[in-house]
Amino acid sequence: MKPHLRQDLFSSSWIIINDDRLKRPNDYSNPQTKCPFCYGNEKETPPSVFEKKKGGKWYIRVIRNKYPALVSIKKNSSVKEGIFEKHFFSGIHEVIVETFEHNKKIYEIKHFDEVLGVFAMRMRELYTQRNVKYVMLFRNYGRNAGASLKHPHSQIIALPLEPARIVEERKRFLEYYERKKKCLMCDVIKNEIEIKKRVFYMNRSFIAFAPFASRFNFEMWISPLNHIPNYYDEKEFKLLWDVIKKVFYALHTSISDLSYNIIFHTSPLNCKSFHWHMEILPKLAMPAGFEWGSGFYINSISPETAVSILLSGKRFV
Amino acid sequence: MKPHLRQDLFSSSWIIINDDRLKRPNDYSNPQTKCPFCYGNEKETPPSVFEKKKGGKWYIRVIRNKYPALVSIKKNSSVKEGIFEKHFFSGIHEVIVETFEHNKKIYEIKHFDEVLGVFAMRMRELYTQRNVKYVMLFRNYGRNAGASLKHPHSQIIALPLEPARIVEERKRFLEYYERKKKCLMCDVIKNEIEIKKRVFYMNRSFIAFAPFASRFNFEMWISPLNHIPNYYDEKEFKLLWDVIKKVFYALHTSISDLSYNIIFHTSPLNCKSFHWHMEILPKLAMPAGFEWGSGFYINSISPETAVSILLSGKRFV
Repeated sequence: MKPHLRQDLFSSSWIIINDDRLKRPNDYSNPQTKCPFCYGNEKETPPSVFEKKKGGKWYIRVIRNKYPALVSIKKNSSVKEGIFEKHFFSGIHEVIVETFEHNKKIYEIKHFDEVLGVFAMRMRELYTQRNVKYVMLFRNYGRNAGASLKHPHSQIIALPLEPARIVEERKRFLEYYERKKKCLMCDVIKNEIEIKKRVFYMNRSFIAFAPFASRFNFEMWISPLNHIPNYYDEKEFKLLWDVIKKVFYALHTSISDLSYNIIFHTSPLNCKSFHWHMEILPKLAMPAGFEWGSGFYINSISPETAVSILLSGKRFV
Repeated sequence: MKPHLRQDLFSSSWIIINDDRLKRPNDYSNPQTKCPFCYGNEKETPPSVFEKKKGGKWYIRVIRNKYPALVSIKKNSSVKEGIFEKHFFSGIHEVIVETFEHNKKIYEIKHFDEVLGVFAMRMRELYTQRNVKYVMLFRNYGRNAGASLKHPHSQIIALPLEPARIVEERKRFLEYYERKKKCLMCDVIKNEIEIKKRVFYMNRSFIAFAPFASRFNFEMWISPLNHIPNYYDEKEFKLLWDVIKKVFYALHTSISDLSYNIIFHTSPLNCKSFHWHMEILPKLAMPAGFEWGSGFYINSISPETAVSILLSGKRFV
């Protein structure tokens, strides 16, 4: 069956049906997997879309995903099936291999400021492609976060639809702006700096804080202090890297066998009320029926406690 | 910190902050855990709210959850913290211990039709309590589904707010009704029976099918054929049990080490357009950054393939 989209009539979710994804290698379930992202195995992946090189060898590499969530199609089309509809819509799915070193934690990748620049460059490029409604950038690390390969990498997907979560978030930014003539995130940051107890770290351009309504244990957001809607307009990669490094050093120190997802929440095109930010979602516990069924989350570590644990520099679990 | 609710200003999610939940026993991470739900260990739990007995001994037992998501409070109150607010709202969290036998899979519990009756009875009772806006019933099984205890049990939570997912689902039912003067689920069922390829089983009162927009591998919904908004108005527990038994026998046969969540989607009070149903969400793969960040889901097994695998009676993984 060709990869396609289906809309859930009972919610706003979109589902990508794609049985090619079953064939993905997984070095968590199979430790013998030959890593396609290591030096010498470049032929295991599609050719590079972009490379940063030093002494003739790559140290950052962008490739098309060999098992993409969505594939490039010349013309979008839809097929009815009774009251349902299958949508054959185009998408682009790339992988950013962040280093040639297989076992590095994110805070150990010395040139990660350059990786952050590549993220912005690829995002800008993908937004120029036909039929792209949203570009999503994320990083999965560890088995509990759904990662399939350990080698440091992030993923970027150009989507034919704006994701439900972003539609909603954009609406909240817009409503807040219409009510207060101010940005919701700018106000949240001001509030956090006043209250102090959820701020982990800040430098002159960025802040790292545990959000008031943290869904996950040790959830951490990183945001520019200035109002910047799109990640691809970001310039301060060295200062952003300074914050990311400190946050992940603390997370790995306090939590053994850490798994996490990073999601870059960036503005859809032409939405000036959005304020881009990174959401870091550690996965210490598995979400269960209550979470899946409700949209409620139970968090057993308050964000205030989480920050005090991270600042202590002590092992928690 | 007393358990309380916080609303995410960037979405419609509600978060319960409750550090008592950290103390829960977990016999996945600690196999030496003394099971609080086995015969002889009744003192490890709060006293029974309800029991079904045979020969002087209980075989179904309803108790208050020792580590409730929300606690009973006399009067709801809210406290401001800058632009945020903490809500100390009342809730009730019960556990239904479904059998005294520790290791049974759901399809092996011979009196499960009676358990289904107890679910309806408790749901009806909790809806009569003060400040209850929604009653949610769910069952977690296996480590990947976030279960902490193996002993067969379900949970029921009386909530002070209608969950975001139910608000949205109710809206969809209502919109469909206003447009077509028919129930969305009644039409979906009719469509599935015509198309055939996603129906796993039906008897004279219920149908089990893989939904068109399945989010998870082997997702399966069970619904009454007739339009019944509330689960607590259900009467046909023997016929419902017949379907549940066949679905789970097939799931356990095709999938080794199965983990799943069951969520009962039932109507909020006085919403006649809702059609109650059970959503069975197996957890073969971990949701990753893309899912958490977007509200998109990638499913690597189409519902049509899932049903043909389940009907084959063969091991898949």
